[in-house]
Amino acid sequence: MKNQVRICMVGAGRVGKNHSRAISRHIPAGKIVALVDPAEAIRQETALEFNIEKQFTTLEQALESCEFEAVVITTPTPTHLPLASLAAANKKHVFLEKPMALNLDECDAIISSAEKYRVLLQIGFMRRFDPEFVEAAQRIEAGEIGQPMMIKSNTHGPGLPPPWARDLRTSNGMLAEVNSHDWDTVRWLMGSDLERVYTEVANFKGPSNNVDTPNFYDNVLVNIKFQSGGLGLISGVCPCGYGYDARTEIIGEKGIMQIGTLEGQAVVVCTDRDHGLVRPIVRTWPQRFAWAYIYELEHFIQCVQTETPPRAGGLDGRWAVAGVLAGTKSFLEQRPVYLKEITG
Amino acid sequence: MKNQVRICMVGAGRVGKNHSRAISRHIPAGKIVALVDPAEAIRQETALEFNIEKQFTTLEQALESCEFEAVVITTPTPTHLPLASLAAANKKHVFLEKPMALNLDECDAIISSAEKYRVLLQIGFMRRFDPEFVEAAQRIEAGEIGQPMMIKSNTHGPGLPPPWARDLRTSNGMLAEVNSHDWDTVRWLMGSDLERVYTEVANFKGPSNNVDTPNFYDNVLVNIKFQSGGLGLISGVCPCGYGYDARTEIIGEKGIMQIGTLEGQAVVVCTDRDHGLVRPIVRTWPQRFAWAYIYELEHFIQCVQTETPPRAGGLDGRWAVAGVLAGTKSFLEQRPVYLKEITG
Amino acid sequence: MKNQVRICMVGAGRVGKNHSRAISRHIPAGKIVALVDPAEAIRQETALEFNIEKQFTTLEQALESCEFEAVVITTPTPTHLPLASLAAANKKHVFLEKPMALNLDECDAIISSAEKYRVLLQIGFMRRFDPEFVEAAQRIEAGEIGQPMMIKSNTHGPGLPPPWARDLRTSNGMLAEVNSHDWDTVRWLMGSDLERVYTEVANFKGPSNNVDTPNFYDNVLVNIKFQSGGLGLISGVCPCGYGYDARTEIIGEKGIMQIGTLEGQAVVVCTDRDHGLVRPIVRTWPQRFAWAYIYELEHFIQCVQTETPPRAGGLDGRWAVAGVLAGTKSFLEQRPVYLKEITG
Amino acid sequence: MKNQVRICMVGAGRVGKNHSRAISRHIPAGKIVALVDPAEAIRQETALEFNIEKQFTTLEQALESCEFEAVVITTPTPTHLPLASLAAANKKHVFLEKPMALNLDECDAIISSAEKYRVLLQIGFMRRFDPEFVEAAQRIEAGEIGQPMMIKSNTHGPGLPPPWARDLRTSNGMLAEVNSHDWDTVRWLMGSDLERVYTEVANFKGPSNNVDTPNFYDNVLVNIKFQSGGLGLISGVCPCGYGYDARTEIIGEKGIMQIGTLEGQAVVVCTDRDHGLVRPIVRTWPQRFAWAYIYELEHFIQCVQTETPPRAGGLDGRWAVAGVLAGTKSFLEQRPVYLKEITG
Repeated sequence: MKNQVRICMVGAGRVGKNHSRAISRHIPAGKIVALVDPAEAIRQETALEFNIEKQFTTLEQALESCEFEAVVITTPTPTHLPLASLAAANKKHVFLEKPMALNLDECDAIISSAEKYRVLLQIGFMRRFDPEFVEAAQRIEAGEIGQPMMIKSNTHGPGLPPPWARDLRTSNGMLAEVNSHDWDTVRWLMGSDLERVYTEVANFKGPSNNVDTPNFYDNVLVNIKFQSGGLGLISGVCPCGYGYDARTEIIGEKGIMQIGTLEGQAVVVCTDRDHGLVRPIVRTWPQRFAWAYIYELEHFIQCVQTETPPRAGGLDGRWAVAGVLAGTKSFLEQRPVYLKEITG
Repeated sequence: MKNQVRICMVGAGRVGKNHSRAISRHIPAGKIVALVDPAEAIRQETALEFNIEKQFTTLEQALESCEFEAVVITTPTPTHLPLASLAAANKKHVFLEKPMALNLDECDAIISSAEKYRVLLQIGFMRRFDPEFVEAAQRIEAGEIGQPMMIKSNTHGPGLPPPWARDLRTSNGMLAEVNSHDWDTVRWLMGSDLERVYTEVANFKGPSNNVDTPNFYDNVLVNIKFQSGGLGLISGVCPCGYGYDARTEIIGEKGIMQIGTLEGQAVVVCTDRDHGLVRPIVRTWPQRFAWAYIYELEHFIQCVQTETPPRAGGLDGRWAVAGVLAGTKSFLEQRPVYLKEITG
Repeated sequence: MKNQVRICMVGAGRVGKNHSRAISRHIPAGKIVALVDPAEAIRQETALEFNIEKQFTTLEQALESCEFEAVVITTPTPTHLPLASLAAANKKHVFLEKPMALNLDECDAIISSAEKYRVLLQIGFMRRFDPEFVEAAQRIEAGEIGQPMMIKSNTHGPGLPPPWARDLRTSNGMLAEVNSHDWDTVRWLMGSDLERVYTEVANFKGPSNNVDTPNFYDNVLVNIKFQSGGLGLISGVCPCGYGYDARTEIIGEKGIMQIGTLEGQAVVVCTDRDHGLVRPIVRTWPQRFAWAYIYELEHFIQCVQTETPPRAGGLDGRWAVAGVLAGTKSFLEQRPVYLKEITG
Repeated sequence: MKNQVRICMVGAGRVGKNHSRAISRHIPAGKIVALVDPAEAIRQETALEFNIEKQFTTLEQALESCEFEAVVITTPTPTHLPLASLAAANKKHVFLEKPMALNLDECDAIISSAEKYRVLLQIGFMRRFDPEFVEAAQRIEAGEIGQPMMIKSNTHGPGLPPPWARDLRTSNGMLAEVNSHDWDTVRWLMGSDLERVYTEVANFKGPSNNVDTPNFYDNVLVNIKFQSGGLGLISGVCPCGYGYDARTEIIGEKGIMQIGTLEGQAVVVCTDRDHGLVRPIVRTWPQRFAWAYIYELEHFIQCVQTETPPRAGGLDGRWAVAGVLAGTKSFLEQRPVYLKEITG
């Protein structure tokens, strides 16, 4: 058996817990040896739950006093560049959550850093490892539905994002924090880069949630033209209240393919014929993508063991950020925006 | 265009209304010229709703003072033999609701009468005209799932049957009044007559519904061995409360086929992720089999116009009654019963 | 019973046949007394199939030699204004297929004509009479999903439209001929008029279908901003090959509602576990909207009998045409277009 | 953290591999330290795949030269008693696959042995740990569907069982080897022991599979009367060819509940409207019950760590065996058989 990969988990919040669970319970090839988070309470809680031996308030401290081969970075987007660069400079392989960074300069700096220090870089696009999306991608690639003509991908989530994640000044808002996966999914499944985008947004629940951030929106529709000539749609609603809704539909010259469903557990009940059949909905992203998270981290760890470049790398992360920036510019300027305006 | 077939509707209750609606609104080839029912209130209500010109308290009166080619008999089972015989003796073609009769002697008398007076006889097995069941039957016949090995057919209905229909002394109870269609369906789709049956019954809601009829049951499971060697199940629950549930599943040597679904209208809603997705259930038999009722009556009327023997004839009705009698004998005697014990 | 409404059917093609079937077989309150079509073969075929007594090559001829209360106009869009005006001027009530006309001037002329001669005008938006859409609209109106925030409506059809219907110079192309219903649906269910639209189109199958019409497209995505602040999407693919696909999804402040499904008959088969479960898809629009066509025509006929203004009237038709024109202008000029640019 | 539980896996075949995968990849609290199987090739393959250090041809050898706290027994049914007794006598906790044993005497001996040596005993009824079945059981227990009246449970599997498992002389045939889970499921969810059963069997594919074992059957339907008065059905088809089909439906006084579905991955495709929508079916039991296997073994290991009696214990295994024996006796004697005839 290959050597167990030692990992420093950076960030002890929701995603940090999710990834710690995946590694500590389902990936024997990896071991979390250190947990970094400045917030003591959540750090101790997470360390206890997943039996992580060492805790630090900064990555620097962890690097000084602990040995590991890789970091998994799950902190807010503005911290991605400094953390990823620091890890790379210390020869640690990097698994970096989406969105990769706030802008293309940061993306480029992360990519350069990984190349310079010859460390692996994987972005947290777990859909690329979800069994359903993988199956779909393989069948599209094999030509089953013919040349892709149109794709629709939505991510609607139940809860209001934290303040930094819904403010265009500190993140790129919902298009980045909620819809990052869609930007990657549509490019991946269409087999084409994006040409231009047009975005409409709406703010329905901001007032009742006491959100007065400038340009806040909780509904978004992005119309996409691909370089291949194909069309695309990204839809975001957050908070949507009704569940976690991530579905993709793609129409090719030969037919249609639908990926994902709202339907959760197959336990269907009817006790009132005027009310109807009731079936659980998919409630959360950890529920919907449980295996995808395990598989993406398992892939990263295997890549570290075998020194193989991972799927879902820096360029994929960069393209998603470019989409976010073009999509945001579009609704701010109320016009279609070409990706080349962003990528130069 | 062929001559419009004039019809005397016998019975103005739920089924009489259902069939009157089908003919008067959806089958221009037929016209209800008379309505027979001894109960004045319901008769006048039905006549008014479907614009039926003449009303009578007995079929005899209708025969005396009105011209028509056919009768549609929707009255309780014990009246089937006298009404069908009278109609036949007067050269009227007969559409007769299920169950055909109370016993095989009555079935034989009805069949003989129709033959003697050369009138057509169709039994109200509307599933044989339901587009889904018809499609299924054709595909089974074409060999799509191979030799049928096992079939399961259920009819669960929302409401408590009327007293006469749940009393073994005046009808044959639920196996006859609710599950008649299943007896016909399993024989039709398996392509085989029945060899023996074993029945278990249960009475859960009788006491709370103040039903103290001897041998009353509201749940039934019949285990069937076919002459072909295949196996079958008929399941009945009435009242079941949750909707109208008529589904059939058949497994052949090559695969499985499912016919029907609990799902009603495609209007799916989720407003609470803890409650889940809600979809209407099929609520009633007129909803589930709307087209089937139209098509079976249209078929009958076309057969009258063209003097062609209808599908779902007297022998099919007789086999269903034989099944009912064997199934009932089985639970009364707590042993498997051969159909030949009934049919001689 | 009210007097039977006598109808002159104008147009004997696909829609003419569909509506003739609905009326002659399922709506006893109406009677088609004349059929108008210049094409003799199809006219005779349709007249024979539905037993229509009189045939004419023009509406003028029918008006001269036949008595009727109403016309049902199913001819190509460019003929709508002259035919509807002629009928109105002769005091005939008008049921007019969608799209109402080629531009707003024509719409206004039709509306004026109907008002001037005091005849009823109904546009063929049958979704407003489809049981599922009606149920959905009532529940939205009742507040079940809260204030509507986002709607997505698609119509994808199997076959290539005829040359006139795919050429912007003779019709308004797919947005008008295929997606007319979506324009009406989104406005109806959102409870708001449209503010602006942005359209992307693609042409994938034109070359292989030998279509060299300027500006031809077979894929379209329209991004909509409503006056209410809500967002919308209209999607069109034609020919899509895989079936007839008309689904709508609407997200309100309280939850999600899905209307319609790809799933056709409930006959599910699996004979190969490597292939999977196979279920019929909805194949055609007459299949999907069978009851909707019956109910919309029944409504029209009842309105004629009772001299009541029909639902789905001229203003609804005009708004849909305005959407088509704005959507078309958008992709031709590659910019978002405000509805007020069209409506003035 | 509690001490890791050391496990000796007995049996390296399909189930042995499945359980080895669950423990070694998904249950850090357990470690397989030894693998026992007399068949060298499969033993070495399994040991290599799951990195099991020590291998033995017999449990005796493993007990002599290796330390562990528990055994997981996955060998054919006739070996269950000697292996479980030997393990217990050596103070090893026992996880024992279903069916528990060939007859009630063997069951009693296993239970006595576990009690005498104070070791834990869990039977491999993984459905009791499947998230869907657990959710269903809790909701039934909470009264959601009222008093259970009727249950139907089926297990249909794709492949022909091995010779020993389809021969009544060496196992109890399909009712035991395929339908063991159903016997446990119906008793669990109905909340009642069984009163009597009636069984019909059929042999359709034996001849073409060259099976000439006496009393061989590949289709079975068992009609059950519970002590509670409720009714039940167990259905088995093996080989069924079309997939792995394990569904349960339960009807209570207040409503219906359906557990499980044929539908596999949510990747739905249509490329031919005459063929229809295609969706993957559940293909295998490891696919259907992936989490259930993990959870049942995790439960066992936690019970060992905490010395707590496991759910799904010896008495549950014994009741399932009693059902198998009654069901088998019924079809051999062609009569209903009371459980008390078996249990004494």
